[in-house]
Amino acid sequence: MSKLISSIKEAVELCGIKDGMTVSFHHHMRNGDKVLNMVMEVIAEKGIKDITVNASSIFDCHEPLIGYMKDGVVTGIECGYMGAKVGRAVSRGMLKNPAVFRTHGGRASDMIKRTSHVDVAFVAAPSADCMGNCTGKYGKSACGSMGYAFADAQTADKVVVITDNLRPYPLPGFSIPEVYVDYVVEVDEIGDPKGIVSGTTQITRDPVGLRIAQYAAEVIEASGLLKDGFSFQTGAGGATLAAAKYVKEKMLAGGIKGSFGMGGITGYMVDMLNEGCFESLIDVQCFDLKAIESINNDPRHMEVSAEQYAGVSGRSAAVDSLDVVLLGATQVDTDFNVNVHTDSNGYIMGGSGGHSDTAAGAKLAIILAPLVRARLPLITDRCHCISTPGSTVDVVVTQRGIAVNTSIEKNRQLEEALKAKGLPVVDIKELKAIGEKITGVPKPINQGDKVIAKVLYRDGTLLDEIHQVAGE
Amino acid sequence: MSKLISSIKEAVELCGIKDGMTVSFHHHMRNGDKVLNMVMEVIAEKGIKDITVNASSIFDCHEPLIGYMKDGVVTGIECGYMGAKVGRAVSRGMLKNPAVFRTHGGRASDMIKRTSHVDVAFVAAPSADCMGNCTGKYGKSACGSMGYAFADAQTADKVVVITDNLRPYPLPGFSIPEVYVDYVVEVDEIGDPKGIVSGTTQITRDPVGLRIAQYAAEVIEASGLLKDGFSFQTGAGGATLAAAKYVKEKMLAGGIKGSFGMGGITGYMVDMLNEGCFESLIDVQCFDLKAIESINNDPRHMEVSAEQYAGVSGRSAAVDSLDVVLLGATQVDTDFNVNVHTDSNGYIMGGSGGHSDTAAGAKLAIILAPLVRARLPLITDRCHCISTPGSTVDVVVTQRGIAVNTSIEKNRQLEEALKAKGLPVVDIKELKAIGEKITGVPKPINQGDKVIAKVLYRDGTLLDEIHQVAGE
Repeated sequence: MSKLISSIKEAVELCGIKDGMTVSFHHHMRNGDKVLNMVMEVIAEKGIKDITVNASSIFDCHEPLIGYMKDGVVTGIECGYMGAKVGRAVSRGMLKNPAVFRTHGGRASDMIKRTSHVDVAFVAAPSADCMGNCTGKYGKSACGSMGYAFADAQTADKVVVITDNLRPYPLPGFSIPEVYVDYVVEVDEIGDPKGIVSGTTQITRDPVGLRIAQYAAEVIEASGLLKDGFSFQTGAGGATLAAAKYVKEKMLAGGIKGSFGMGGITGYMVDMLNEGCFESLIDVQCFDLKAIESINNDPRHMEVSAEQYAGVSGRSAAVDSLDVVLLGATQVDTDFNVNVHTDSNGYIMGGSGGHSDTAAGAKLAIILAPLVRARLPLITDRCHCISTPGSTVDVVVTQRGIAVNTSIEKNRQLEEALKAKGLPVVDIKELKAIGEKITGVPKPINQGDKVIAKVLYRDGTLLDEIHQVAGE
Repeated sequence: MSKLISSIKEAVELCGIKDGMTVSFHHHMRNGDKVLNMVMEVIAEKGIKDITVNASSIFDCHEPLIGYMKDGVVTGIECGYMGAKVGRAVSRGMLKNPAVFRTHGGRASDMIKRTSHVDVAFVAAPSADCMGNCTGKYGKSACGSMGYAFADAQTADKVVVITDNLRPYPLPGFSIPEVYVDYVVEVDEIGDPKGIVSGTTQITRDPVGLRIAQYAAEVIEASGLLKDGFSFQTGAGGATLAAAKYVKEKMLAGGIKGSFGMGGITGYMVDMLNEGCFESLIDVQCFDLKAIESINNDPRHMEVSAEQYAGVSGRSAAVDSLDVVLLGATQVDTDFNVNVHTDSNGYIMGGSGGHSDTAAGAKLAIILAPLVRARLPLITDRCHCISTPGSTVDVVVTQRGIAVNTSIEKNRQLEEALKAKGLPVVDIKELKAIGEKITGVPKPINQGDKVIAKVLYRDGTLLDEIHQVAGE
């Protein structure tokens, strides 16, 4: 018995993909992913229309989607993040139905709660056997964790594993078990290694970024959370990595033994594990080669599903045990709402990912961002799109000052502690004024009436809508 | 946030356990299990009645169930295996409702298909954290794999983890993730180490057993399956272990590289892995200390859920890829049906466990049993209870002859090969006659009208019924 079939075409046929269906993908191949494009090419060739693509994230490498949107092959996109290329096309109204944004946790939980239905899930697997046991931990296209693909595999009507490293049964260290898999297809290459991972993640050298990072580390220290058992999530951005460096220095200097680091994992977090800052890593996605090597070799470095990382459908998720998360922003408003979906012109160029999941779960959610970017101020009266509600954001750190969200009771003590440390605590409205003094008040975005995207919160409720960008 | 509560009593209260509910347990603590008894004692003390106990297996250590059956606290038992002590009480009609036997795969699959509902699952966890991530791989009560507990955790309305080794969050190498767990209770001891595992598993020295084992190894060789990629399951019984020894010798002598060993795993299978006979082990339950050490340290030794091991609810299970399984029997009939549920007097003293799952999945299912036991013949016209249908049994090996089930087309070639090798191939009816010549024809079991147990096949359909033993 074997589930191995000859081609993606055969998979599309055997799964009975037809007009109006939803197909899903995960983004561990990141900007090197070839699977989404290969599958959609077959679907388009077969003349199938009105497909909804549910991908955990859409990257610029998925640009062919724009053509499929024009042709009516793709009429819906659901995702946690959408890169600028496809985002711009959606923002211009080229997608028939409004795109649906979910958080990484919410995407998995909506599938598990059956409020999001996938007809056929395609799993890009760096190693797999003929029965569909698969893992991302090794193989020429190794991506490490496959956390975002678990819910797709668990819940889709049909599941197709696509691999470029077919191994003998049973696959050692499988992540997704054969019980979920209908078909296995072998291809030459599921991804371009250059796009899957960056070689190393770099800490910023920009003095503004370093200043922000230093302030963020001071905020963490002042919060009282930086003690034995400390848990921490940070992304792969230069400033947040720099903040991690300062946190690490404080931990090593103070002999602080943290519990876990989490998130998309970088080599920097692996170093912190190996230097004794953490007991373990919780990993839903690997950002670089060092992280991939670590998850494949170190049992303390644990792969988790998106539901276990950040969902709301389980009895708990790891974000519920998180002390501190460092997050970015394209905009913050005076109610501490954060926008990571659209750029300054209103075009989609991102998405929540785990942003609002971790902000909601962490005891302390810190936004790090420069006060001015591309001659536009960070802080505004109302975010163009609310990605993460202000009620879950504790502190905004800029190079010109730190604003604490004291509408959350527990943060008043933190604000006092920051002031006592001599840090530049500034009211968010004042911070807005400082920014606008530099840049002037930006002119409003010229947006149309048409809703081109809906932003769902992690519990599946509507958080915001994004309108078409007009007049270009 | 923590799910840690003070006691099993608090768990029973918080879960709202009340008359008529079903509670579930798993049997990795084997005859050393203390969790089932601790929980049922609390339920009984609270005056709750009419409880159905769904345990993957019932051992003699669960004798207190007999008292609860008398008192009406327990009115139903569902399991994959039932030891002689509780089995005798059930056979005497002491349980109000018929007991329900499932296979290990069928039990998990019925839960996942929602044809078997559990209100509250209790998971005996040798290590756990305060959010319910848990594993059996280490801790003072280490049991290795917790494969039978996965379906309970995935599907029960409420899940309580009971541990005697509470560790910091997040638990490294967790098997069951926090997403499924409602409450965590710390107790002094979840099991008696002496009962959880045997120190080592012993190969039989009995000449009859060795003869049977030798024949079985010859049958495997004659089948043509003993070649590179060979996969194999055997139990912990003395004769099947001896057969494994002969198989191992043939593999080492022939330079045969098998793919996987499976099952309840013994140290003997671990040795075969380490000596290069297998690439990996698929483990739903560990039988001894060496197996536990191996699953904790060797990534080739993989824990699987009961569904992945042997279920029918997934798209495939590991048994579907199995070449050869060696199985025992208390009775075999002339249609090759096998009984492993009742003893020669009709009393329940066992159950299918994975017997009929592996027989159905394996390319070659071999029954090993002495032709005469306790002055009664192995082979009969009709098994007192059909545990495994003859249509899935290929060969019966006794010390006095080998019977091949040639009603299965593919076995005719095997029969010829055995004859060509000079092995004592005997028609099953002739084998019956040989046995009866030694023992005489046994007198029929004195059974009553009342059905005291239903035996479900792995797909959930009724396979047989067991009647009360009368007249004592």
